[in-house]
Amino acid sequence: KKYIDWNPVMAEKAGFRHFMQKEIYEQPRAVTDTLRGKYSLEESLIRLPELDEISGALKDASRIHIVACGTSWHAGLVGKFLLEKFAGVPVEVDIASEYRYRDTILDENVIFLAITQSGETADTLAAMRMAKKKGCSTLAICNVLGSSVSREADGVIYTHAGPEIGVASTKAFTTQITCLYMLGIYLGQIRNTMNEKSRSEYIHSLLGVPEQMEYVLNKDSEIENIAKDFKDYKDFLFLGRHLNYPVALEGALKLKEISYIHAEGYPAGEMKHGPIALIDENMPVFTLATKSRVYDKIVSNIEEVKARDGIVIATVTENDTHLADKCDAVISIPGTSEEVSVFLNTVVTQFFAYHCARLLGNDVDQPRNLAKSVTVE
Amino acid sequence: KKYIDWNPVMAEKAGFRHFMQKEIYEQPRAVTDTLRGKYSLEESLIRLPELDEISGALKDASRIHIVACGTSWHAGLVGKFLLEKFAGVPVEVDIASEYRYRDTILDENVIFLAITQSGETADTLAAMRMAKKKGCSTLAICNVLGSSVSREADGVIYTHAGPEIGVASTKAFTTQITCLYMLGIYLGQIRNTMNEKSRSEYIHSLLGVPEQMEYVLNKDSEIENIAKDFKDYKDFLFLGRHLNYPVALEGALKLKEISYIHAEGYPAGEMKHGPIALIDENMPVFTLATKSRVYDKIVSNIEEVKARDGIVIATVTENDTHLADKCDAVISIPGTSEEVSVFLNTVVTQFFAYHCARLLGNDVDQPRNLAKSVTVE
Repeated sequence: KKYIDWNPVMAEKAGFRHFMQKEIYEQPRAVTDTLRGKYSLEESLIRLPELDEISGALKDASRIHIVACGTSWHAGLVGKFLLEKFAGVPVEVDIASEYRYRDTILDENVIFLAITQSGETADTLAAMRMAKKKGCSTLAICNVLGSSVSREADGVIYTHAGPEIGVASTKAFTTQITCLYMLGIYLGQIRNTMNEKSRSEYIHSLLGVPEQMEYVLNKDSEIENIAKDFKDYKDFLFLGRHLNYPVALEGALKLKEISYIHAEGYPAGEMKHGPIALIDENMPVFTLATKSRVYDKIVSNIEEVKARDGIVIATVTENDTHLADKCDAVISIPGTSEEVSVFLNTVVTQFFAYHCARLLGNDVDQPRNLAKSVTVE
Repeated sequence: KKYIDWNPVMAEKAGFRHFMQKEIYEQPRAVTDTLRGKYSLEESLIRLPELDEISGALKDASRIHIVACGTSWHAGLVGKFLLEKFAGVPVEVDIASEYRYRDTILDENVIFLAITQSGETADTLAAMRMAKKKGCSTLAICNVLGSSVSREADGVIYTHAGPEIGVASTKAFTTQITCLYMLGIYLGQIRNTMNEKSRSEYIHSLLGVPEQMEYVLNKDSEIENIAKDFKDYKDFLFLGRHLNYPVALEGALKLKEISYIHAEGYPAGEMKHGPIALIDENMPVFTLATKSRVYDKIVSNIEEVKARDGIVIATVTENDTHLADKCDAVISIPGTSEEVSVFLNTVVTQFFAYHCARLLGNDVDQPRNLAKSVTVE
């Protein structure tokens, strides 16, 4: 007879070792839940009735300000690409604690978009109140019903991530991007900047995300093995370009938060303007090098690092033997559009940080010095 | 009889040990040269006849895009504050290697402003050509007459920094900020967003910069002593807020470039959203904490670091005994406006990086892996 050593906390973790690990695995489901009921494949439409009240303002807006902190700020940086591409409206992304104290140029033609998992992030809430006072319509992407930000915003798109317990955000980030993706298509509809064919294409590609995420979840132990080899390095650079530049920032932040490794994210094209001086055998470079419009540029960046005897770990698109030969370690992910690659590259960097932290013996779910939501300024 | 050991290279260095040191010391003169002939104290005006041809476009512009790489990008981030405050026009700052590959929303109402010391930075030049093709008026802040960017831009404001030999940019940065400051006031004039009193105040404050820089140059050996104590740390955080956030980025970049120390710049308000997990006795935090509208917030950030047994080096305003007592090392600078504090905090971080690099025995003027101007993509 086999006894299972089971206790209430483990039950909550559904057999996973840590909430973070559980939450990484929950992402395909969380993305599916966030998408549910929000699209029509027949009409190639995104439906966001929660924005009905401000749809006029969204249609006429001359600018959008996305304001957030930490991981949500990184989601905002991805959002800029999506919203500008789909809706043709200029988007500025700012850190809430900076935005609040600027002489920000705001009027009723600006849409203010807050991104916050908890809906209680103090700086983000204060920034939203400031924008509201100046006459902006306010929009929020939020995970918590009834939170301050969700109550005060004129329109809310909810991430249906479920409770996120791990301090290092995972499923909140990918569901925020899901919402931004939908918002972009929605704006493209109401502003007439996206035709039906293009909407259909992007909606289908978004619907494929959960399945492709599952595929990357299967790389768990492969990534664990890479983490074993690299966990003892004290410094990392994370490089990406274009849509995957914010993912590089997010990958570096995860490693900081739970592994206490000094990882820094950089847009790969900036490496030659300074950071390359740091490259030596003590600072591995984690590069997001999946196929994209900037693939050739990323390959050059990798070559520059290798020319200085640097160590390169890279995410690559399946069957990219060219890069596999150049790099010290690669994790391959399915071929997708650049917009979808964001989700997949994110999962890889989450696993990498998770396994480094766990192998280093850190408290993954409650890292030192950090709180889950920063409700003070 | 005393012989002086003098050789042609030293002659070029005017007795300084390195070009970088010489160039740090040249800054008051370089700022003065950049300002010369560009202002009228009687009329409280900035005169930029070099922009006459595009003054109509500048008057009517609905947005400004500042695009640059490396140190010039940091100058651009400072510029955003100045231009938005003085001229009330929304400014977006982007990294050239990112900007080029975006679906950037551009039309003839956008002013494109390139910042580049050499005028040959490949990504910046390519971005400018792209903007020009889309109908934007183009403006450049540049140090080299006859360079590609200066030839192709519709209007150029020159930094009169003289040749910059050290790979780590110093006087180019402070003269770029001088130009942005002047451009801000000039836009404030032609767009009627700044009254005479306010222009007069800011022009006077700008004219005071060289003398206040001289004062900070006298702190050379004081900062050298601090560098002696901290040069062996492998990782640093540089924190600032508001106008001094880009200075924190620049201070960190200097340390990366020539000291090969992994220093990372951060907006201080973001620390709680991740980086604070890294804080321990191995990672000093260099904080720009001079008096400003965000002074109280910065003091809280310093207290948070100290509560985690972190090490804090800070620039503070003279006679700020409150912070002097809290920090492990302070460098005090004269009380000024926040706009001027940018110049003074910059000099402090330049000296700090210079002395760390020199004391570590690095090749200060030609750091490993770096070129003076990045003329390839």
